[in-house]
Amino acid sequence: MSGYNHSQVWLAEFVGTTILVLLGLGGVANGVLPGTKGHGFGILGVALSFALGIFIAQQCVGHISGFFNPAIALAGAVVGNIHWTHFWICFSAEFVGGFFAAIIVWISYFPHFQSLEQEVKLSVFASRPSVRQQYWLSCVWSECFYTGLLSFAVLSISNRGSLAIIAMPEVSLFKEELQPLFTGLLIFVLILCGGGTTGPALNPARDLAPRFAHWILPIPGKGPSEWWYSWVPVVAPCVGAVLGGLFAKSMKHMLVAGL
Amino acid sequence: MSGYNHSQVWLAEFVGTTILVLLGLGGVANGVLPGTKGHGFGILGVALSFALGIFIAQQCVGHISGFFNPAIALAGAVVGNIHWTHFWICFSAEFVGGFFAAIIVWISYFPHFQSLEQEVKLSVFASRPSVRQQYWLSCVWSECFYTGLLSFAVLSISNRGSLAIIAMPEVSLFKEELQPLFTGLLIFVLILCGGGTTGPALNPARDLAPRFAHWILPIPGKGPSEWWYSWVPVVAPCVGAVLGGLFAKSMKHMLVAGL
Amino acid sequence: MSGYNHSQVWLAEFVGTTILVLLGLGGVANGVLPGTKGHGFGILGVALSFALGIFIAQQCVGHISGFFNPAIALAGAVVGNIHWTHFWICFSAEFVGGFFAAIIVWISYFPHFQSLEQEVKLSVFASRPSVRQQYWLSCVWSECFYTGLLSFAVLSISNRGSLAIIAMPEVSLFKEELQPLFTGLLIFVLILCGGGTTGPALNPARDLAPRFAHWILPIPGKGPSEWWYSWVPVVAPCVGAVLGGLFAKSMKHMLVAGL
Amino acid sequence: MSGYNHSQVWLAEFVGTTILVLLGLGGVANGVLPGTKGHGFGILGVALSFALGIFIAQQCVGHISGFFNPAIALAGAVVGNIHWTHFWICFSAEFVGGFFAAIIVWISYFPHFQSLEQEVKLSVFASRPSVRQQYWLSCVWSECFYTGLLSFAVLSISNRGSLAIIAMPEVSLFKEELQPLFTGLLIFVLILCGGGTTGPALNPARDLAPRFAHWILPIPGKGPSEWWYSWVPVVAPCVGAVLGGLFAKSMKHMLVAGL
Repeated sequence: MSGYNHSQVWLAEFVGTTILVLLGLGGVANGVLPGTKGHGFGILGVALSFALGIFIAQQCVGHISGFFNPAIALAGAVVGNIHWTHFWICFSAEFVGGFFAAIIVWISYFPHFQSLEQEVKLSVFASRPSVRQQYWLSCVWSECFYTGLLSFAVLSISNRGSLAIIAMPEVSLFKEELQPLFTGLLIFVLILCGGGTTGPALNPARDLAPRFAHWILPIPGKGPSEWWYSWVPVVAPCVGAVLGGLFAKSMKHMLVAGL
Repeated sequence: MSGYNHSQVWLAEFVGTTILVLLGLGGVANGVLPGTKGHGFGILGVALSFALGIFIAQQCVGHISGFFNPAIALAGAVVGNIHWTHFWICFSAEFVGGFFAAIIVWISYFPHFQSLEQEVKLSVFASRPSVRQQYWLSCVWSECFYTGLLSFAVLSISNRGSLAIIAMPEVSLFKEELQPLFTGLLIFVLILCGGGTTGPALNPARDLAPRFAHWILPIPGKGPSEWWYSWVPVVAPCVGAVLGGLFAKSMKHMLVAGL
Repeated sequence: MSGYNHSQVWLAEFVGTTILVLLGLGGVANGVLPGTKGHGFGILGVALSFALGIFIAQQCVGHISGFFNPAIALAGAVVGNIHWTHFWICFSAEFVGGFFAAIIVWISYFPHFQSLEQEVKLSVFASRPSVRQQYWLSCVWSECFYTGLLSFAVLSISNRGSLAIIAMPEVSLFKEELQPLFTGLLIFVLILCGGGTTGPALNPARDLAPRFAHWILPIPGKGPSEWWYSWVPVVAPCVGAVLGGLFAKSMKHMLVAGL
Repeated sequence: MSGYNHSQVWLAEFVGTTILVLLGLGGVANGVLPGTKGHGFGILGVALSFALGIFIAQQCVGHISGFFNPAIALAGAVVGNIHWTHFWICFSAEFVGGFFAAIIVWISYFPHFQSLEQEVKLSVFASRPSVRQQYWLSCVWSECFYTGLLSFAVLSISNRGSLAIIAMPEVSLFKEELQPLFTGLLIFVLILCGGGTTGPALNPARDLAPRFAHWILPIPGKGPSEWWYSWVPVVAPCVGAVLGGLFAKSMKHMLVAGL
């Protein structure tokens, strides 16, 4: 945890996840709610919102701890990059941050929640499958595979960086300055290219915590929170992230052996 | 003020704010006025205009002084990063720059101001709420919260940079070269994700000065300048920026203590 | 091959091409298949998908081997930058990766392949001319010329980088960190500006391997795989890439002589 | 001219201008010609085409000579940054490059030039005012002002860079690697924000040379080349660029005095 104590890491993960989720859900709200200035800007705008959300979050507090995603933190713990204590700190801070962010988005877009379509309201908070219910296996696959790719890419880039830092200490400058931008571009392309079926969430804190907020907030005429689907964007990203992390670790061993 | 005298700082803030506001309002004009080549490009184009406006302004004169926003300069003075003299220089230069820029935009888009809709003409100059009047509290919240986030993020990134410069002087290169790009991306995502309700202005110089220009310029059939709303994008960003700056400062103390 | 053995290079090219093609084809699928969240985002979204696809692929495994395109690898071998052994490793790994990626895209977008239009289904996998058949020569020209420009630009940037590294070793940091981003922007602009007639593929592994996947996969109501056109995005990019590579080499000689 | 001889500078300006104009006009062609894959992508796509066109051109040959624009080269000669010989080399190479590029775009989009609207065909080659003829003064203003801003910004950024290089030689790395990207973003925002009235050309080589190509090429049913307007995107950018350059130079003197 690079010299920071547990409370500082918790605070960083809480602030960062709040920033990520409030910008991401804010982008969805601006794109789908009726009467907003950005109504109808589509998946490009939504993908940019989440991408730049993680970019800003990592720029602000990422030097302390920069996961903002329980699935990636889980992968980090499983492959041994972080302690399990660090994982549980991330886990709790991220869910509280995601819940807090959902409330801010609701307040910010309060006038636009007077619309009639229940499903639009829910889609601001939680991911929803774009296909008929019998294809839920596709959504499980999408969340699992694309979070796996995210986990693999984040760990591969980080591994490459570690090798380079040993060779040249100045590389750490690049990591600190440019890595948040690259992570943002990674999130962008995963939503753009893998987002046809479910969104996708890629992050339990971005889906479960706001869904809970949708469930308890007094949004008029809000309809059901679709809890039957809620396990998909939690379990599938975690499974995918761990598999992607293990794949990155095994590739690292194969590739480092060649040096 | 890094070795520059008061006139030089005034000039830099004037030139920079002029560039920022003329590109930002120019983007709005191209997007909303009838018959332009960019008509209807939506909030993505507008957000890019303001984002790249601040990027270009900081690239040109940001090494002298790079606020271009009285609310952020106020936050800088309150948390003690700049002298109050520097704030008043910024304040006057930025309002003059914003007014000057509005005139340039009017000249540049002169033929397209022959349109009939009064509200479209005003929206080139000043931000307008997208919702019915009874929800003005939402606009106050949006301007306050998102400017607060801007202020928090700008100061957090700057604090992180300061720590890094002590450790490694080469980091200052990154700050000078990449920070304008990162600030631009920050503005972009704040407009994209928080812009559903009011725009938002996030910057008194971008709203009050051009509104004044709209009020005195002989634009044919221009309609009212909606002065009743004009206090919102002035007071709310200032309150938000100061709160965000104080939050960044207190987090800095908490986090530095951990090193 | 910078210290890596043949299996490691094969693995890197396989993983990288899989990432590039699955993100690129995934972007096409999200943009054209019915009922997806990104339906209709157009050529900007598709160009971003391929651009960021190569960016992510090079960030993950590009320090080992980063062609992901048999035509560019061929140009590298012809101008003498890589051994022919390296070319054949790339060639086989890239076609297997492209085929594997096409299967992943089909699985990911499975529910959306229930649509009726045969041509839309094919266009997820393979490039198709946008004009009537008598203009096939235009497609040959487009694939040849724009891949030639890609090859020329990649080699010119790489040559310039090599000169700079001799002068200042720190430049290698930039190459490793920023070059993938620049290559992505290059791909983006080539599709945006040269993509009116055919797409274009610019890469045999992105067209022939997925077309083969379209041919053998049990996609219901899939229609013909248009094999009559399949030679164009294979032969023309290879011819163009070699010519562009030779042009870059001859310019390098002319320009280095001046130093 | 940094160690390169006249023929090498001519070749660099020719190749660079060809790349810039063929990507820029190719983007326009893809956006406006009927039946293309990018039909209707609007000013965002066109602005990206020119922006990334200059980015790629500078990445390939910009270390030798990177103007690709006679108006900016003229400003450079007037303020004393380059010799007048260098200007005349740029001038001739850029017009030949622009003409050559227009022919390549015509060949690349040959099948799509079978359309009936004469004005669409011309707009691929030359800029056209979006407003009625009596407002031609607006077009003169736009070309003059926004090219002036381009010239001011390019010279200001370059001046700032020169100061920094004296202080720290590593800065030259940033200049060489990142400056092309920043110039591209500058072009992008100028088209986005100043492009409502005329496009604008901002560059005589991008307008006059392709207009000449339109005039002599055997495009079926092509209509008039609108020579009456052709002086605007030549004279106005040159006047603006010189004024912007002189303003940058006088600011440099004022600001350097403060150090």
